[in-house]
Amino acid sequence: MVGVVGAGQLARMLLEAAVPLGIDVVVLAERPDDAGARAAAHVVLGAPDDRRAIGNLAEQVDVVTFDHELVDLAILAELEANGVAIRPATATLELAVDKGWMRHRLAGAGVRVPPFAVLDPADGPRSRLAAIGDFAAEHGWPVVLKTCRGGYDGRGVWRIERLDQAAEILAGTPEGTSFLLEPLVAIRSELAALVARRPGGDTVSWPVVETAQVGGVCREVLVPGGLEASVAEAAGRLGARVAQVVGAVGVLAVELFWTGEELLVNEIAARPHNSGHWTIEGAETSQFENHLRAVLDLPLGPTDPTAPAVASVNVFGADDGTDPAAHLGAALAVDGAHVHLYQKAPRPGRKLGHVTVRGTHGSSVRRRAWEAARALGTPVPAGLTLPPGQEAA
Amino acid sequence: MVGVVGAGQLARMLLEAAVPLGIDVVVLAERPDDAGARAAAHVVLGAPDDRRAIGNLAEQVDVVTFDHELVDLAILAELEANGVAIRPATATLELAVDKGWMRHRLAGAGVRVPPFAVLDPADGPRSRLAAIGDFAAEHGWPVVLKTCRGGYDGRGVWRIERLDQAAEILAGTPEGTSFLLEPLVAIRSELAALVARRPGGDTVSWPVVETAQVGGVCREVLVPGGLEASVAEAAGRLGARVAQVVGAVGVLAVELFWTGEELLVNEIAARPHNSGHWTIEGAETSQFENHLRAVLDLPLGPTDPTAPAVASVNVFGADDGTDPAAHLGAALAVDGAHVHLYQKAPRPGRKLGHVTVRGTHGSSVRRRAWEAARALGTPVPAGLTLPPGQEAA
Repeated sequence: MVGVVGAGQLARMLLEAAVPLGIDVVVLAERPDDAGARAAAHVVLGAPDDRRAIGNLAEQVDVVTFDHELVDLAILAELEANGVAIRPATATLELAVDKGWMRHRLAGAGVRVPPFAVLDPADGPRSRLAAIGDFAAEHGWPVVLKTCRGGYDGRGVWRIERLDQAAEILAGTPEGTSFLLEPLVAIRSELAALVARRPGGDTVSWPVVETAQVGGVCREVLVPGGLEASVAEAAGRLGARVAQVVGAVGVLAVELFWTGEELLVNEIAARPHNSGHWTIEGAETSQFENHLRAVLDLPLGPTDPTAPAVASVNVFGADDGTDPAAHLGAALAVDGAHVHLYQKAPRPGRKLGHVTVRGTHGSSVRRRAWEAARALGTPVPAGLTLPPGQEAA
Repeated sequence: MVGVVGAGQLARMLLEAAVPLGIDVVVLAERPDDAGARAAAHVVLGAPDDRRAIGNLAEQVDVVTFDHELVDLAILAELEANGVAIRPATATLELAVDKGWMRHRLAGAGVRVPPFAVLDPADGPRSRLAAIGDFAAEHGWPVVLKTCRGGYDGRGVWRIERLDQAAEILAGTPEGTSFLLEPLVAIRSELAALVARRPGGDTVSWPVVETAQVGGVCREVLVPGGLEASVAEAAGRLGARVAQVVGAVGVLAVELFWTGEELLVNEIAARPHNSGHWTIEGAETSQFENHLRAVLDLPLGPTDPTAPAVASVNVFGADDGTDPAAHLGAALAVDGAHVHLYQKAPRPGRKLGHVTVRGTHGSSVRRRAWEAARALGTPVPAGLTLPPGQEAA
């Protein structure tokens, strides 16, 4: 039996993958109508940092794994010390929850990352501002400031053009916040390398994908995208290397910048990841199934793509708040559209699902995935060139 | 919301297919540990012929569908008359639950079926024996006697060499049992044509498959098997025609005999079927997803195979009663094995799961599927030639 801390869409898709294998899953959900809880046969209600709730979950299962990183590492470390199987282990989670620590660790292991500095909360505001000024003097404006913990989908990330903007942001964040500072990397494309790793080190890698981010939010995933094969292969090796460095168990997603000359590790997520949703239909074994197999220390499945081209497009809440479920028929009318709805309460701009299409041509699968995502109400994102026939009305 | 009467493995796989679509499913289960109930977020407990339980289910959902045919048609007809959406409709279920009525109806519509006679319970035992004698005189011994209702997986089927055997069987079955009588058809292969049909008549067909039955129980499904393309195409057309004749809504499986010269309809099942489990990984849209789409009157998904060759082998309880779950790791170590375990209590000879492998060569996928099924404890069936390397030890 597997316990999942958190009950978002990742927990939901882990549940889907567990059913065929005959594996029971219990999710720790904050609310009974969480995306994961709505599809679950076994739910424990409680917050992800509630000692009693996590303890209750841990007692019922063979292994505890995660839907997100908003966890209390002290509680998990205590359980781990008492013999509970926490996978990935707290040592890996420590890196995954703290962008500063992650960069230090990877850089120390010889993995290429963008130039960076960490602004410690113990330094006073003046010293931190001075550090930003020094960093910008060395690498040039603008710089990018990210909270080390808790940011995701573009939250907790600022692009800064001048020192007074930095001062405002530092003043506006809670005391004790650590920041990661980096230059605005001139990137040609954003990639994601996805691997699954067993406790003993056995690792499999899926084909590297190209992602399109708008405002820090993933909008589409293209496999293989426009990548040259040699870059894709190097990125795949890099993903496996990072998994080894951080001691990953389960799925690890490594977000990469390709500058046209070098591959830099941007972030990691020690769990199934949006950049891997395409694997449900598009790969011989999905990231969700291999995550379960890895955390249960079972042999991992093959990761070969099931089609020459796969596109996965995220579904976001329509501006008028309509539930995409109301348009399910229109989306399913799109040839080959695999629609995934997370049953989350619809709100404009909220990530509510995704659509995957597989086929022989990248342009066709991308067009059809967008057609279905738009049928479900997904607004056209500013800053992304849509396929012909899918431009903004 | 969809209600499923019955909570076996078919309900379980309908649940799996419902999660990505964001469709809630309620199963009517006799016991909380039924295969379908164990994976379900919503369960109503009750027998499939319990008027109150079915009424309770119907009140919660938009449409009622089925995991099996062991239903009380009078109760369903009453609900249907009161406006409940029963899909497939009771008029179709009437055919599906009664082999005699089904043969009459298909023969009347010009669909080729084996020669047959129906032994009505109203006729006395002497008159029924005389009818068997007359039938054998016309078509030759042996003949095959089947109960019109309730038989499945080889139960309720007898091969009869002499009249005294027939007398014994008639005497040993409950009063009021109807029988279907047919000759032992000399068949070259057994096929299954699988279609999904919407209420308005829109129909899709999956590639026709070759099945191997031992003792009336399906052991393996091969796609495309050894079929000539022209026969497969004719069988596909026949499946769609039968769906129209019986007014199917949802998935309809049509089991066919190929004699080498003609295609004969043997049986039908108005629901997802064992011969279609391969579609989960092997087709662009699975039978379970298209069943849900059809009963909800949503557009049907494409049925193209995702690989040139697919094999699906059933998992049966080992002779020593071991739970196949204990051997999950060994089965997953087989390259490309997609393991499905139904979480049913293990008993020797009980159908407990299936394994699907897709690939480029029929011989390789069949060998690997058997390797995984045997790793899970499946005994070697007498009367089936296993692939090289998988012969009985």
